[in-house]
Amino acid sequence: MKTLNLLNYAQDGWYQAPGGLAEVQSAVTGEVIATTGSQGLDFKAMLDHARTVGGPALRAMTFHERAWMLKDLANAIMARKEELYALNYQTGATRTDGWIDIEGGAGTLYSFSSKGRRELPNQRVLIDGNMEPLSKGGTFVGQHVWTSLQGVAVHINAFNFPVWGMLEKLAPTFLAGVPAIVKPASSTGYLAEQCVRIMLEADVLPKGALQLVMGGVGDLMDHLTCQDVVSFTGSAATAMKLQSHPVIARESVRFIAERDSLNASILGPDAGPGTPEFDLFVKEVAREMTVKAGQKCTAIRRAMAPAEHIDAVQEALSARLAKVKIGDPREEGVTMGALASRSQLEAVRSAVEELSKSARIVSGDPAASPVQGNGAFIEPILLRSDDPWGSDAVHDVEAFGPVSTIMPYRDLADAVALANRGMGSLALSLFTFDPKVAEEFVLGAGAFHGRMMILDRTSAKESTGHGSPLPVLVHGGPGRAGGGEEMGGVRGVTHYMQRTALQGSPALLSGIVKQWLPGAPKPEGDVHPFRKRISELEVGYTLKTASRTVTLEDVEHFAHFTGDTFYAHMDEEAAKASPIFEGRVAHGYLILSFAAGLFVEPAPGPVLANTGLENLRFMTPLYPGDSMRVELTVKSKSVRDEEKGEVRWAVYIFNQKDEVVATYDLLTMNRP
Amino acid sequence: MKTLNLLNYAQDGWYQAPGGLAEVQSAVTGEVIATTGSQGLDFKAMLDHARTVGGPALRAMTFHERAWMLKDLANAIMARKEELYALNYQTGATRTDGWIDIEGGAGTLYSFSSKGRRELPNQRVLIDGNMEPLSKGGTFVGQHVWTSLQGVAVHINAFNFPVWGMLEKLAPTFLAGVPAIVKPASSTGYLAEQCVRIMLEADVLPKGALQLVMGGVGDLMDHLTCQDVVSFTGSAATAMKLQSHPVIARESVRFIAERDSLNASILGPDAGPGTPEFDLFVKEVAREMTVKAGQKCTAIRRAMAPAEHIDAVQEALSARLAKVKIGDPREEGVTMGALASRSQLEAVRSAVEELSKSARIVSGDPAASPVQGNGAFIEPILLRSDDPWGSDAVHDVEAFGPVSTIMPYRDLADAVALANRGMGSLALSLFTFDPKVAEEFVLGAGAFHGRMMILDRTSAKESTGHGSPLPVLVHGGPGRAGGGEEMGGVRGVTHYMQRTALQGSPALLSGIVKQWLPGAPKPEGDVHPFRKRISELEVGYTLKTASRTVTLEDVEHFAHFTGDTFYAHMDEEAAKASPIFEGRVAHGYLILSFAAGLFVEPAPGPVLANTGLENLRFMTPLYPGDSMRVELTVKSKSVRDEEKGEVRWAVYIFNQKDEVVATYDLLTMNRP
Repeated sequence: MKTLNLLNYAQDGWYQAPGGLAEVQSAVTGEVIATTGSQGLDFKAMLDHARTVGGPALRAMTFHERAWMLKDLANAIMARKEELYALNYQTGATRTDGWIDIEGGAGTLYSFSSKGRRELPNQRVLIDGNMEPLSKGGTFVGQHVWTSLQGVAVHINAFNFPVWGMLEKLAPTFLAGVPAIVKPASSTGYLAEQCVRIMLEADVLPKGALQLVMGGVGDLMDHLTCQDVVSFTGSAATAMKLQSHPVIARESVRFIAERDSLNASILGPDAGPGTPEFDLFVKEVAREMTVKAGQKCTAIRRAMAPAEHIDAVQEALSARLAKVKIGDPREEGVTMGALASRSQLEAVRSAVEELSKSARIVSGDPAASPVQGNGAFIEPILLRSDDPWGSDAVHDVEAFGPVSTIMPYRDLADAVALANRGMGSLALSLFTFDPKVAEEFVLGAGAFHGRMMILDRTSAKESTGHGSPLPVLVHGGPGRAGGGEEMGGVRGVTHYMQRTALQGSPALLSGIVKQWLPGAPKPEGDVHPFRKRISELEVGYTLKTASRTVTLEDVEHFAHFTGDTFYAHMDEEAAKASPIFEGRVAHGYLILSFAAGLFVEPAPGPVLANTGLENLRFMTPLYPGDSMRVELTVKSKSVRDEEKGEVRWAVYIFNQKDEVVATYDLLTMNRP
Repeated sequence: MKTLNLLNYAQDGWYQAPGGLAEVQSAVTGEVIATTGSQGLDFKAMLDHARTVGGPALRAMTFHERAWMLKDLANAIMARKEELYALNYQTGATRTDGWIDIEGGAGTLYSFSSKGRRELPNQRVLIDGNMEPLSKGGTFVGQHVWTSLQGVAVHINAFNFPVWGMLEKLAPTFLAGVPAIVKPASSTGYLAEQCVRIMLEADVLPKGALQLVMGGVGDLMDHLTCQDVVSFTGSAATAMKLQSHPVIARESVRFIAERDSLNASILGPDAGPGTPEFDLFVKEVAREMTVKAGQKCTAIRRAMAPAEHIDAVQEALSARLAKVKIGDPREEGVTMGALASRSQLEAVRSAVEELSKSARIVSGDPAASPVQGNGAFIEPILLRSDDPWGSDAVHDVEAFGPVSTIMPYRDLADAVALANRGMGSLALSLFTFDPKVAEEFVLGAGAFHGRMMILDRTSAKESTGHGSPLPVLVHGGPGRAGGGEEMGGVRGVTHYMQRTALQGSPALLSGIVKQWLPGAPKPEGDVHPFRKRISELEVGYTLKTASRTVTLEDVEHFAHFTGDTFYAHMDEEAAKASPIFEGRVAHGYLILSFAAGLFVEPAPGPVLANTGLENLRFMTPLYPGDSMRVELTVKSKSVRDEEKGEVRWAVYIFNQKDEVVATYDLLTMNRP
């Protein structure tokens, strides 16, 4: 393979460092496969470029437009994925490992694209929660909103997932409307560089949205402000060094860290040998040790079992690990490749040495070279600690390779305490078929773990596994794990936005959030709103209907027609005896049905269907003889594509005293 | 007044420091009124006490139980509020100033109590967002939850609002189930100490829930972990010192800071002299300068006006400030009291000196002593900067007293840029009657400000004011303001909880979150669920109804009865022509009504009323001739009091092919 000359991408141009280049070796052969370096980059200019060119361009787009952009990026990567797989082997990863990185990365873009279009508005401002009434008369109200940060996301990534690790940060960042500067880890950066190349060549990103640093970040940190976000994945030591840069505290720069994690997996007290959960546990621990040669921040480092089952666990695990076939990841039948680099191999060996001071190796030889040559290969190493409260190392030292320690626990409380002894982790798994065990574990350990998978015989077949972060779930953990949070759908998007509490009149705030708020004007017009296309409908536009009296005959008739003869509608005495009603009342569904009868425009037109209804509350009972009228107001609207869109209507039903009988949001599908 | 001997409250006992006491002076007279000190406290033991006694007790309570506790605390404070008002004068504050602190503080407890009961479940685990499907078969799903942190909240408070500043942090902390150690500022700590005394004597807090440090915090920071939260209000310098303590980065201790803020208020380009907004602006700036003698972190420090109106603003503001009556806050007619201490007076004078290097004083004399004696009195000082881009100080130096700088802007973009030049603030206000101005400001400046009030003639009368943080809105801001966030209702509660993504089978997760999740079992029984009291209803309990055919006659009949003759129900050709339907379809409301007819148990019983409906989606059209049946499942339940509670039912309507026609949550009010 020809040596790759890795380039930086700065201010919308590729940049070759004039010197200070570092060599990158293949994890499999030890040969030099690339040179890389960032000497001479003007980091301040890069930040300024992102702030003045990339940010404004992204912020001018709506969430939906950005979501479509993510889909285009994912398509571009999938179309050229074999270019990435070809490089993937050099990192020591098998094709299966590469699938997690490459297709898992593209999948994350797809997931955020989908979430963005389904859960975010086709707008630039995101509403957060309900309007808060702040005054009796309703002229002064509050509404929280999220707006895009006006700075740059600086992503400092780990070596283990050069593609996924980059894309899982870029997806929420771009969806939030924020440009990024990506710094991949040196040892596997050639994969990230190629992926950036593919994304740029897809030509869907605005200028200034994405820049790439293939080396040190120089004085970049010095120029950060409160509008920037540093998102770091890597070791605790590096995280702490970055976090203690004075600019972080001085400017309150957001710092998201995902770092060390001594993830635990627990065999439930009910899950002895012979149960499906026992087998699932053993399989999962072995899998987490060997996938990606254990180089996953979510991998199981501490496997805990009831003291009486620890021997059985050791035996079953050792048997499984003996079957692992280590070798060149391109070779048929190989199930575990190499570590990412020789220096990583040394780091793992050194961590195992530290661990073995208070735990003993029961499977594998850390000194062995399972594959000839200069590759970074190592056997899976299983350790055992019989006194886990007597060893700090097993809870504190992360060997970032195919290394786990098994340990016994006395009872459930002990297991919870041992799990929490890791002082914060990304992922925990518990294998139990006992709901009480699961509940006790979540209440006892939830606050220490960012994700908890509880597996049993009913869910195992479809499980995504202990070690897989998912785009729709948060990824991150407290304490040792860094205290950060990434992904989790829209949650991850807000990490790149600022929440602001707006206060003012409903009319003014409606105009900003593009949603009618209670108390805002309700202009009427000559045209029935069902006759207007979405593009013609203005937020706030209102139909006020005629009124209709609801008679006792209506109630009787409706009851017999529908079969709903609930006593509150049918029995005057029983209704009076209820603590709520003064006598027989009209059915809620009768009121909704009559409301539709009052506001519907029957002829074919832009409204295609009533698709749903939300937040219905019945506020005042409607008694026979009362009359009702409806106000139907355009609350918000969204065009999905050329065929369809959605209109959300605020519906208020009043009685003859102008008391609100019921209020709800009505959803219709409309032509744009 | 007798000198107060202020005590610490540690490990559920009052503690008198044996030495190292500091003296506290009255802001009004300069006399020594109290001695205070924390020497000899065992901070590690205090933390341990909170963790092992207070935390478990609070976590054993539900959100509703904790919410009632907050109400009891508020009632206790209100019953003894005059004790606090009596001390309040010593801080230099008027009764109006004290109202913000004392009754505003109690009001914050009431607000969180109310939010806790209305928006949080009567459980210990809080669900976050919807269930996330993670598998095709639905046997493996995800659900985010919040659980209480298992550590301690360390609250380090500012001197300006000794009561409110303590309670606005305690309310969300206790509601989250977390114990607290409070450290008030020395100069006004006597008010906080008395308030703590009142709360403890109310005897509603569990042991270990609240401790008080009346002096330095010694080695407390050394013992913090990832389960603890430090919430600091005060100067940026102190915040940075605390935040750079190595334990913060090492253990990822949550650090919430609310620090300096050069808050801006902007007169809109449309709001020239003679408009209501002009008068409102002048009034608000003057008010923010003088309330609490300007010692509010949200006070207006930078008042911006269109260049052509800056003279008019100066004139109107100076005239208003001339009417301020400074003096002993107990005296009739006094509108502004003293600063909180002589050292504060010196700090303000020094900041004014710094400001006056690049801005000129146009009203007030910082050297003047407007009241005789040793009180910390100062005149309101108005500065003017005619070249705000030429002065860093006016955007960087916070004079924490009755001090503001007026400055001109060229156009709206310039105003946005000047506002953002503060590099992050707590509160901004904009006075405009032009919705376009408001929108441009929010899009341009939102990311730099935690709260933005946009006032006009319609909302001013009911406005809560530029400077008032509200319990239902977030308080905090990016950058210089510290990057923290407090309050905001439930948002503030989650700062003391950990979000965890749970994964597993719907059955298992349902048991943990006490809510039926799609895919979880639906056990049936002999008793109709409407015949069971809430206490007898089990989450998941399901009624499966008989089925009913919906005929074309039903559709016709319903249409004419209700008046809803929408073409999709009435006109076969038009319905077919729609992109959604294959022919005439049943009304959604007909389906809902028939569903109720199928599941309702008519006789009087524990179900009192249908109170609402949520998340209704029509999934599959129901055509005449199709049949429908209903599954009604207890989704969750909550007892409000002895009379009433709420049951949420998951309703699924199926057609004869077992396709889901519609799904929704039905809400009923039930007897417990």
